[in-house]
Amino acid sequence: MGDWTTAKVLDHGFVHLLDAMPHWLRPAGLLGWAADARVVQAARVSMAHMPSDVLMSLGLETEMEERTREQDTKLIDYLLRNAHTSPFEKVRFEFVVKLPIFVARQWIRHRTGSFNEQSARYSKLPCEFYVPELTRMQAQSASNKQASGEPLAPEVASYALDLIDTNASAAYATYDHLLSLGLARELARMVLPTNFYTQWYWTVDLHNLMHFLKLRLHAHAQYEIRVYAEAILAMVERVAPVSIEAFRRHVLAEAAQ
Amino acid sequence: MGDWTTAKVLDHGFVHLLDAMPHWLRPAGLLGWAADARVVQAARVSMAHMPSDVLMSLGLETEMEERTREQDTKLIDYLLRNAHTSPFEKVRFEFVVKLPIFVARQWIRHRTGSFNEQSARYSKLPCEFYVPELTRMQAQSASNKQASGEPLAPEVASYALDLIDTNASAAYATYDHLLSLGLARELARMVLPTNFYTQWYWTVDLHNLMHFLKLRLHAHAQYEIRVYAEAILAMVERVAPVSIEAFRRHVLAEAAQ
Amino acid sequence: MGDWTTAKVLDHGFVHLLDAMPHWLRPAGLLGWAADARVVQAARVSMAHMPSDVLMSLGLETEMEERTREQDTKLIDYLLRNAHTSPFEKVRFEFVVKLPIFVARQWIRHRTGSFNEQSARYSKLPCEFYVPELTRMQAQSASNKQASGEPLAPEVASYALDLIDTNASAAYATYDHLLSLGLARELARMVLPTNFYTQWYWTVDLHNLMHFLKLRLHAHAQYEIRVYAEAILAMVERVAPVSIEAFRRHVLAEAAQ
Amino acid sequence: MGDWTTAKVLDHGFVHLLDAMPHWLRPAGLLGWAADARVVQAARVSMAHMPSDVLMSLGLETEMEERTREQDTKLIDYLLRNAHTSPFEKVRFEFVVKLPIFVARQWIRHRTGSFNEQSARYSKLPCEFYVPELTRMQAQSASNKQASGEPLAPEVASYALDLIDTNASAAYATYDHLLSLGLARELARMVLPTNFYTQWYWTVDLHNLMHFLKLRLHAHAQYEIRVYAEAILAMVERVAPVSIEAFRRHVLAEAAQ
Repeated sequence: MGDWTTAKVLDHGFVHLLDAMPHWLRPAGLLGWAADARVVQAARVSMAHMPSDVLMSLGLETEMEERTREQDTKLIDYLLRNAHTSPFEKVRFEFVVKLPIFVARQWIRHRTGSFNEQSARYSKLPCEFYVPELTRMQAQSASNKQASGEPLAPEVASYALDLIDTNASAAYATYDHLLSLGLARELARMVLPTNFYTQWYWTVDLHNLMHFLKLRLHAHAQYEIRVYAEAILAMVERVAPVSIEAFRRHVLAEAAQ
Repeated sequence: MGDWTTAKVLDHGFVHLLDAMPHWLRPAGLLGWAADARVVQAARVSMAHMPSDVLMSLGLETEMEERTREQDTKLIDYLLRNAHTSPFEKVRFEFVVKLPIFVARQWIRHRTGSFNEQSARYSKLPCEFYVPELTRMQAQSASNKQASGEPLAPEVASYALDLIDTNASAAYATYDHLLSLGLARELARMVLPTNFYTQWYWTVDLHNLMHFLKLRLHAHAQYEIRVYAEAILAMVERVAPVSIEAFRRHVLAEAAQ
Repeated sequence: MGDWTTAKVLDHGFVHLLDAMPHWLRPAGLLGWAADARVVQAARVSMAHMPSDVLMSLGLETEMEERTREQDTKLIDYLLRNAHTSPFEKVRFEFVVKLPIFVARQWIRHRTGSFNEQSARYSKLPCEFYVPELTRMQAQSASNKQASGEPLAPEVASYALDLIDTNASAAYATYDHLLSLGLARELARMVLPTNFYTQWYWTVDLHNLMHFLKLRLHAHAQYEIRVYAEAILAMVERVAPVSIEAFRRHVLAEAAQ
Repeated sequence: MGDWTTAKVLDHGFVHLLDAMPHWLRPAGLLGWAADARVVQAARVSMAHMPSDVLMSLGLETEMEERTREQDTKLIDYLLRNAHTSPFEKVRFEFVVKLPIFVARQWIRHRTGSFNEQSARYSKLPCEFYVPELTRMQAQSASNKQASGEPLAPEVASYALDLIDTNASAAYATYDHLLSLGLARELARMVLPTNFYTQWYWTVDLHNLMHFLKLRLHAHAQYEIRVYAEAILAMVERVAPVSIEAFRRHVLAEAAQ
């Protein structure tokens, strides 16, 4: 597993690509990438008969349809453009993610993945919380009721950052104190603000991942989840570059208009 | 809609049963309750032919199978005991729930329902947070790494409650201050601890609701979500009493052993 | 329940709208239709606080945001255009459908609904099978590998219809014969061709129903499922006309290009 | 890929395990099997902090909790016994299956997997249909309305088999004839009975696979799907033996009582 499978995100977060099905190190046929090849294979089952390796393993034989790399690329493009989603469900990813609680609360609304989150009932959380960069300290948008607008003046931003930092440190001190008084972890944790970090395993297929990326790469998505989406896009692009190129062309480009 | 469709839960929360399909005021056949009747009807489609009202509306006729209330009750019991879940998916509920964020985070792990949550990006949250009752201030369990045990001594409990209250009030003051400095709502909210209240619409079918209740009524479930589960159980029992009686007998009784 | 809730489809099939949540007879606020009102209500929970009737039932009060019918219509349009799908999940339909097995096999690939199908293990199927109209007897398309093209010459079509009819009748005679020999129903049924009718209950929410309609109203969809989709569209339009108008404008019109 | 990944089922069917996540050839830690190790890892994220390899890849360090193989085995047993299902969702399988249409119709009711089926709209089906073994020709059960009972007398069984065979051959001749008349494939296919074979890709996670196996290995399941379930159980047991042993002990043994 090379370096590219892990990316730092925000001040203490990360995304780590733990596994994929098919794995990126498996043989990949014409397209050169196992994940793209799996999409093609699933799409072609509706169109022709069994993969020849299966037939051969059963003692049967078949004529191999002659295909070219260009045809496979066009097929993926066609599937994506026409919302034929089920072949993309055949490719699956497993990520480990460390992220602020308020980001986790947006993320989990994508219910089509499977999540295993660390539990603060079971073990004490470390003192790790998110504090934005100075340039991220933006004012409420004037035109969009749910977005950020212009940066605050630097001295205001700096003062606001201090407030966020102090609030989190004080909350953690209270948390620590409550635990030392003997209070159950499941109760004490309620004092921690939502900029504290949590972590989880996330399993998701390529179709649902692209839906997540479409919404979370959008200019209206909150910055703090967008940076995770960008890190994930870069990883997935290394595993399924043909699919992601079609996704960029037909979905991201359109959403950006 | 009578009083029984709304219940207060914890210090500022509630559960409100907004709607059901079939609605509890609809005619309900032999069993006397429309929701139970729908379960029976869905189960019987596998066993006999069309409901007679449909056939009649199509200008066709059929012999009505003679059934008794006792047979329908036994059928529901049989379905539940043998995990024939799909007839229970035919009954659906829509709830409005106000609940602390840390409870919402446990709840949403039941991904089979549909959630619409209030957004703190869009509007400012009011200063409403959960503070436990004095008797709920329990120590960490000695035997179970994720549970509460004995109550804290009253003076310790009282002191700990003050800490929780002060922490939340201070966080809200910071939140207020950040907003008055002009910081975007989507950023300012990160300072609020997870005992602040949120609210959502939750749509769920009876099968998945029973699964939720099984896990969240369990003695190991955290008290703060168990009280919501109990309020929901009481409402659903008024809408589908035959199904819930079978659920109590076969699922809850077994889980309690 | 008026006539419009049942429609004959093909030679022996039908669609019957059994129920909806919210039911179409419930009060519906500004928009005049309960289902559209529910979509708006779910969308607005992210934007404002609790519905005033809930607040009042809890002994609380709130300022009513002033809204107009035009604003609600625009909101639905906005949700649909921007793929904000979760408010549409709040509206749910229950259909009874009688349809040929080969149509059922396409339909069930939409896995997001819940199905309860009649079982031929449990009871003997009647002798009801689909025979196309003469004008539907079309040749294989020259340009599209999975579609129909020009009509066959009438005398060829007529001869082919005889073959289909004879094949089904002969299969049913064999089925009957096997049962009279005492063979188990679960085995005897395997001789029936896929133009025999089956029937099921189908529960689906408005979001997933629109996805079904988008694919099955498409010119590339097979005629025999398209006519069911058209019957369903007409019914749903009576229950949620504002949502369906937006769906026609943004989804169907685009898919037709 | 060894021989064990493919099994012949019925007269012309098969199951082929195409892939798994994690793949069975990956390193597997204490338990010796990558899939079981992934279940343990997902369960432990709720209990401890990050896996040490992730932490190390981020330039962080952690104390390794000391665990034994016995503890991991007990953990899997505990998860299964207490219906903690989400760790089992982390393991995923991809199968290719060839099966009679009437079996496919039962199978697809398990909607939690993802299916890609060959299309008879796109290409002509070969003449392959299921004919039971002589000993499988059983009478309708006297006690169970949906099951098979005693074997038919051999001469009756043999006669019934001839009827099934003749029916399928005649239907295929009609199919062939309709195609030669130029009828579209999407129409001609309706004459084929449900004992004809189809094939599909099936992707499913271990949790949902175990649910499928529980229902389809049950004595009440139809023989023709039970043999597929048995073939799949044998394959999955080679990939996740610790999980399957716990499944046999707690789920299958209980269902058999």
